[in-house]
Amino acid sequence: MTVEIDHVGSTRLANRESREHVVNKSHADFRGEGLAAVLTGDGELAEGQIWEAAAFAAHYNLDNLTVICDINRLGQSDPTMYQHDMERYRLKWESEGFATQVINGHDVAAVLAALDKAKATKGKPQAILAETIKGHGFSEVADKMGWHGKPFSKDQLAAAIEELGGGPTVPPDPGKSYIRTSLPKPPDFPPAPAPDYKADAKVATREAYGFGLKRVGAVNKHVVAISGDVKNSTFSEIFQDAYPDHFYQGFIAEQNLVSTAVGLAARGKVPFADTFACFLSRAYDNVRMAAISRANINLCGSHCGVSIGEDGPSQMALEDIAMFRAVHGSEVFYPSDAISTERLTEHMARRAGINYLRTSRPKMPILYSKDEKFPVPGFKVLRQSAQDKATVIGAGVTLHEALKAADQLKSQGTAIRVIDLYCVKPLDGKALAEQIKATGGRLITAEDHWPEGGLGEAVLTALAGEGASPTKFKLIAVTKMPHSGKPEELIEAFGISAKHIVEAVKAIS
Amino acid sequence: MTVEIDHVGSTRLANRESREHVVNKSHADFRGEGLAAVLTGDGELAEGQIWEAAAFAAHYNLDNLTVICDINRLGQSDPTMYQHDMERYRLKWESEGFATQVINGHDVAAVLAALDKAKATKGKPQAILAETIKGHGFSEVADKMGWHGKPFSKDQLAAAIEELGGGPTVPPDPGKSYIRTSLPKPPDFPPAPAPDYKADAKVATREAYGFGLKRVGAVNKHVVAISGDVKNSTFSEIFQDAYPDHFYQGFIAEQNLVSTAVGLAARGKVPFADTFACFLSRAYDNVRMAAISRANINLCGSHCGVSIGEDGPSQMALEDIAMFRAVHGSEVFYPSDAISTERLTEHMARRAGINYLRTSRPKMPILYSKDEKFPVPGFKVLRQSAQDKATVIGAGVTLHEALKAADQLKSQGTAIRVIDLYCVKPLDGKALAEQIKATGGRLITAEDHWPEGGLGEAVLTALAGEGASPTKFKLIAVTKMPHSGKPEELIEAFGISAKHIVEAVKAIS
Repeated sequence: MTVEIDHVGSTRLANRESREHVVNKSHADFRGEGLAAVLTGDGELAEGQIWEAAAFAAHYNLDNLTVICDINRLGQSDPTMYQHDMERYRLKWESEGFATQVINGHDVAAVLAALDKAKATKGKPQAILAETIKGHGFSEVADKMGWHGKPFSKDQLAAAIEELGGGPTVPPDPGKSYIRTSLPKPPDFPPAPAPDYKADAKVATREAYGFGLKRVGAVNKHVVAISGDVKNSTFSEIFQDAYPDHFYQGFIAEQNLVSTAVGLAARGKVPFADTFACFLSRAYDNVRMAAISRANINLCGSHCGVSIGEDGPSQMALEDIAMFRAVHGSEVFYPSDAISTERLTEHMARRAGINYLRTSRPKMPILYSKDEKFPVPGFKVLRQSAQDKATVIGAGVTLHEALKAADQLKSQGTAIRVIDLYCVKPLDGKALAEQIKATGGRLITAEDHWPEGGLGEAVLTALAGEGASPTKFKLIAVTKMPHSGKPEELIEAFGISAKHIVEAVKAIS
Repeated sequence: MTVEIDHVGSTRLANRESREHVVNKSHADFRGEGLAAVLTGDGELAEGQIWEAAAFAAHYNLDNLTVICDINRLGQSDPTMYQHDMERYRLKWESEGFATQVINGHDVAAVLAALDKAKATKGKPQAILAETIKGHGFSEVADKMGWHGKPFSKDQLAAAIEELGGGPTVPPDPGKSYIRTSLPKPPDFPPAPAPDYKADAKVATREAYGFGLKRVGAVNKHVVAISGDVKNSTFSEIFQDAYPDHFYQGFIAEQNLVSTAVGLAARGKVPFADTFACFLSRAYDNVRMAAISRANINLCGSHCGVSIGEDGPSQMALEDIAMFRAVHGSEVFYPSDAISTERLTEHMARRAGINYLRTSRPKMPILYSKDEKFPVPGFKVLRQSAQDKATVIGAGVTLHEALKAADQLKSQGTAIRVIDLYCVKPLDGKALAEQIKATGGRLITAEDHWPEGGLGEAVLTALAGEGASPTKFKLIAVTKMPHSGKPEELIEAFGISAKHIVEAVKAIS
């Protein structure tokens, strides 16, 4: 079940200090036209996302939504939790704020009457709870376990049709119905205004995301943002401050957060959904299904890696690159300064498919001029000379550690090449291969992520695809379970600091 | 919120045809001793998993569970959905089957009385809904947004202590409290009986998982299984048939499924939780947190890849290897026949940490004798000669396609080496490097998975770590979004069949 909302509108209290935002629920005209109907089975009503969506729909007063629950008592492998306890279902939906009707789902007149009543009811979303019998009308299987997903034999089919009093005439399948059309492109828009930072500013990429979103919002009225109750950490709050009617509070319900973004995209919006990167792991199935549904959604995961510091491992995303790389048609961005963050945010708003931006908590120096371009695929070579002994590829905090390592090594007479891999997927293997070849095939990758499925493996695969595997290689990543600490302590303790990069360069040179 | 259940017990109706199992809810003595208390905030009550767990706890009549909800009205970034609407919370918990008490959470006597009453109430789990003020007792912050997770200044701390009438004396932190102890080992048990299949049998690995679980259950009474309403597809039903009191129905609620396994492990059980591999993507945060919690859990994901056939892409796991490799301390198994599946299932029951078994839907030939050992890390060389032109590494359906490719190439005079990579993590890079070196550095990996983070990248990384990258390499994987079809059609259409392996061998030889 995915609740699709359009603008619900929001206004903010003037009291800035308390930052208490109030959603204006009376803006029903913003929630989309027409009726929305959702059909669910009863087995899937055990799924938590159903109740995330139900609460969300009632909170935003989506009274044009009607959920029809087919309560047939039988799951795939056992009876459902509540079987035909219709009262239990009524209580559950009413507790969420839905108006309910319990009907006999085999009584067509009752179904039609319930739909009419739901259509006429205002002020609440609707749930029609239809009591049914699985396999109704064919006594051999009716109300019996063991038939879920099983095709009938020819004899059974004939017997079923006879018992049902004849079947409808179904036209033959023309075939090829599975051919997929290409993704719709998000609406075009003029270039966003250039980012604006002082050259010596230190800005967290998570904060630059908020500024970038605001700049994109200035030139593209279709851009909307939704946050999982962390807008003051992910900084989508900056966008909300500028465009309060284009921002939604998604609360702590990440599955519904991502599915709502899919719904917004289906309605022609350009949605950006954000939460801590680690919490997007709750919505991985929703991201997977968004790709299958050819949705155009933009996701921002903040607080990646051990560099978040004190909040500890439960808040550290160390698997998000692996997760988002393994999504069909995704692009994965990992910026290291505010300028690139803003430009990649703009790129995402233009692109069809699943786009993921990994942002970092620590403040980091500006690396680029405001007019720098960030092509996709692409990377930036930040240090290079004809004497480079090795290439070091990093992103986020590890890129800044690599730059420190380059400075230290330079003072000792060793030159290295340093690459900012702002785009982790897709990769230009050929262009990367040229860089690695120029440094004798010696490569070090460094990432604030587990070793598996991350930046290092992405680079290795791209190089191997070009027949240009490194001759000497070291993958620097987090390999032990981290704990709480100061960011710089953790970067050191968990093996991804400048010191470790220097050691790796010496080991492979 | 994780509900930890122990044996709830179950009995089965004699009617085998209907396969309708009934849980005996009266076996309260199986659900664990003592009281279980869960403290939740109100912001997190928007999270669907809370309601998966609530429904589950009520269904299994865990009346020794008391949930205490701190309803303080304010989320991190906005007021919560229901703020102080205590009646709404009462309705929600009661609709799930909980007995509720609404209290003033600042009235210590009321809190104690509510806990006493909860302890004395039988027949239902309990929810104590405590209305509180965030920052209660310090007027500068009480009931105000903007203070979530923010430390006070020294002056504020002094003012708060003064207004609260003095603070408690806290002993100084002895430090080093974060040092993690090693994982507890699951209980030891005697060797499981050897698998028993006819040499010419064709058995799906998903089915062999059920047989393996049954054999391990015969020698280890701590083994329990829980399924997300798919036990008749994942075949944990075979275990249930043998040990009905050691099996739980988890319903369609994957987050709670995995967290229940964590709870069972915490109670000394050796839990195996199963669902379709793609649906485990719903529980990725729970797996991540299980690793952080140093839990010992075994997960089985069935129906991997395009080889499932007709059910279409929503049911095809193409990202699960990437997902599970990027879990700290995990082991990832991908067996290609029934014997190895059973042996790896036994290995999992002995091992601490997160263990993942990827099983396949198609029936496949037996490859090994019943006494074959499957060390971890490890792999099997199934075809080899001194003339091998390339190494092909596969698992599951792609291994069988590689064997077909080897036969086809042999008839054309070309020999290849074929490796069964039953253990995808950890990998013995050195041993793999020797194999690749013996075939001139030419390597093909083939997997029923997206290219990212899977078997191919795992192998590449292991080889690069040994300074033994392939000289010529081709990664065969699913690169287009699949659709429905017959398994053999899809293997062909999506590029992972024997034909594609033959072409790759010719291209790199």
